[in-house]
Amino acid sequence: MHLTRRDFSKLTAMGITAELLSSKPAFPAQPSGKKVGYAIIGLGRIADLHMQGIHASPNSKVTALVSGHREKAEKYAAQYGIAASSIYSYETMDKLRANSAVDATYVCLPNSMHAEYTIRSAKAGKHVFCEKPMSTSVTDAEAMIAACKSANVKLMIGYRCHYETTNLAAIKLIRDGALGKVRSIQSAFGFNAGANEWRLSMPLAGGGPLMDVGIYCLNATRYLTGEEPAAFSAYSTNDPQDPRFNHPNSVEEDLVWTTKFPSGIVASCSTSYGANMQGYYRVYGSKGWLQVTEAFSYQGLHLTAEYERDAEKEADRTVHLDQLNPEKIPHQFVNEADHFSRCILTGQTPQSPGEEGLRDMQYIQQIYKSAGIKMA
Amino acid sequence: MHLTRRDFSKLTAMGITAELLSSKPAFPAQPSGKKVGYAIIGLGRIADLHMQGIHASPNSKVTALVSGHREKAEKYAAQYGIAASSIYSYETMDKLRANSAVDATYVCLPNSMHAEYTIRSAKAGKHVFCEKPMSTSVTDAEAMIAACKSANVKLMIGYRCHYETTNLAAIKLIRDGALGKVRSIQSAFGFNAGANEWRLSMPLAGGGPLMDVGIYCLNATRYLTGEEPAAFSAYSTNDPQDPRFNHPNSVEEDLVWTTKFPSGIVASCSTSYGANMQGYYRVYGSKGWLQVTEAFSYQGLHLTAEYERDAEKEADRTVHLDQLNPEKIPHQFVNEADHFSRCILTGQTPQSPGEEGLRDMQYIQQIYKSAGIKMA
Repeated sequence: MHLTRRDFSKLTAMGITAELLSSKPAFPAQPSGKKVGYAIIGLGRIADLHMQGIHASPNSKVTALVSGHREKAEKYAAQYGIAASSIYSYETMDKLRANSAVDATYVCLPNSMHAEYTIRSAKAGKHVFCEKPMSTSVTDAEAMIAACKSANVKLMIGYRCHYETTNLAAIKLIRDGALGKVRSIQSAFGFNAGANEWRLSMPLAGGGPLMDVGIYCLNATRYLTGEEPAAFSAYSTNDPQDPRFNHPNSVEEDLVWTTKFPSGIVASCSTSYGANMQGYYRVYGSKGWLQVTEAFSYQGLHLTAEYERDAEKEADRTVHLDQLNPEKIPHQFVNEADHFSRCILTGQTPQSPGEEGLRDMQYIQQIYKSAGIKMA
Repeated sequence: MHLTRRDFSKLTAMGITAELLSSKPAFPAQPSGKKVGYAIIGLGRIADLHMQGIHASPNSKVTALVSGHREKAEKYAAQYGIAASSIYSYETMDKLRANSAVDATYVCLPNSMHAEYTIRSAKAGKHVFCEKPMSTSVTDAEAMIAACKSANVKLMIGYRCHYETTNLAAIKLIRDGALGKVRSIQSAFGFNAGANEWRLSMPLAGGGPLMDVGIYCLNATRYLTGEEPAAFSAYSTNDPQDPRFNHPNSVEEDLVWTTKFPSGIVASCSTSYGANMQGYYRVYGSKGWLQVTEAFSYQGLHLTAEYERDAEKEADRTVHLDQLNPEKIPHQFVNEADHFSRCILTGQTPQSPGEEGLRDMQYIQQIYKSAGIKMA
């Protein structure tokens, strides 16, 4: 398959998304007109992006806010036309149950609070969209799934890349066999964390760069292969001279791990809070390779590939792809909102349900164990 | 340090080479006029390149040939002006001892033959340049070092990258602190091996892609960090449906490994005989990163880097480097010949002596052990 620019833009169709990642048929058309109403819990940077995405989507709208900062909430309420009576504090948010304009919540809080607010949302009878990482422990992830099941509400984890055009194009190339048999993957994602950030503390953050950004590499090795890891091996290090990382409560600074998949694919990944690592992956197969740079960014994703194919003319036998994705913020957030709203409107299970987040939590636990890191 | 194009070309000076990698003072000027004479053992592809390099160097010349193919040897003899009496077979090569035009040998044979011909060269009283990997076992590597020591001849292993401009520029950036504290390295090198090649057989090759090309990544993590690895962890896989890799005598198809260095640097590397992997490395530090693509190729090496530095103007604070090395084949081979000849003429130890090759053999043994691979 030679993916042209035209094919590339066709992939934005959400039906393709579902098919590619879950091998399920495309979603049926949604009932027209109805928009799913969302309460946003936590008004940080990622919440702002999600509100932009919801607002720009055809089937979603922001109808309530939950925040500890009333002024900030009022500013957003004015922006999105939300009634003052639909602004809640963390103490009053359980009253969401009575708000019929709210079908679902968006949990955009720090990681260690995901479990509590997902469970409270479920108990209020609302569907839940929860940012990644789903939680800071396997136990919490299991409790979140159980709470949503028990309340008969849907749970979707914010794996943006599952709904993102360039990542889907990479997956499609692999599934179509363009690279032949995939043999090996390399990936990295990391950044230089600021001093005194809550994310540097194991009790507050629940985990370090693996849980925060390395999870993108981990999840990518799974969606690129379509397989579940069979084994992990990992090393981590902390600079004893760096005050960010040399105390007993510190998260890991650098972590590298290797994964073995059942089919024989191997992967090696790196993450860091001590160095900037542009997010990327390379996939090596028997017939060629592909690379995505800025693979986990909100925009600027860039796919390059080179592979051999059958063709009459020799000049046509090697395919070179070089595709810079022109989509801009908040495109990926629109895709996420659109997908979850369709699921709610049509009764489908999200492509990245709670079980997907739980699996990553289980793998993170295995990687930390191999590296000798005790989770909080 | 901002490495300009001019700085870059200055690095070709061999004095810098020695200083960078070994922290020894630059070599003294060599006695003028004298050229070191080499006997080339084995006339395959790499030998052709080495002969071009020797011929183009200011202090070296090809003076004898050892080959099982008389016709091929005669062709090269005509090209390089070698007397018919200086063409030897593998059976007669020990007569090199009596040939005063030969100071040293170049061992360019398949890996499993390196030990025997290095030891025979030493016994003939000749210095030895031996291609990498030095041998196919730690025991052989030790025997080669002992034989050269006992014969009082020098032994250099063909680690081209130790004498190559772009790799030296990367090392210099790191040593000068441009990247801050190095935290993590990723590297890969592999190719899709042809069916029925001798390299696919463990008894013939002594090892798979790790020993053949992965050794470049392994050695790079050592010269980039300037440290010796503290621990290795590895996975390998073979496709059970691929006749190249599904028999009991097969070498590994794919291998990934992670390394931990004493200072806390971690590295993750990949190698393969089942997929093409362009040789590259990325080095991530606290102040920035660098990447070299085609890092282990004979030409076309490309250094990119981005790092922060102190500067008055904000616009000067981020340095972007993008340097495509214009040097062409056989440049790297000239550097190797020039270095070894200087060592012979001035009595210095080569920058990549037998002990350097032995260390890699020991590390390869550890990586194979971790992956559960039994060396021949």
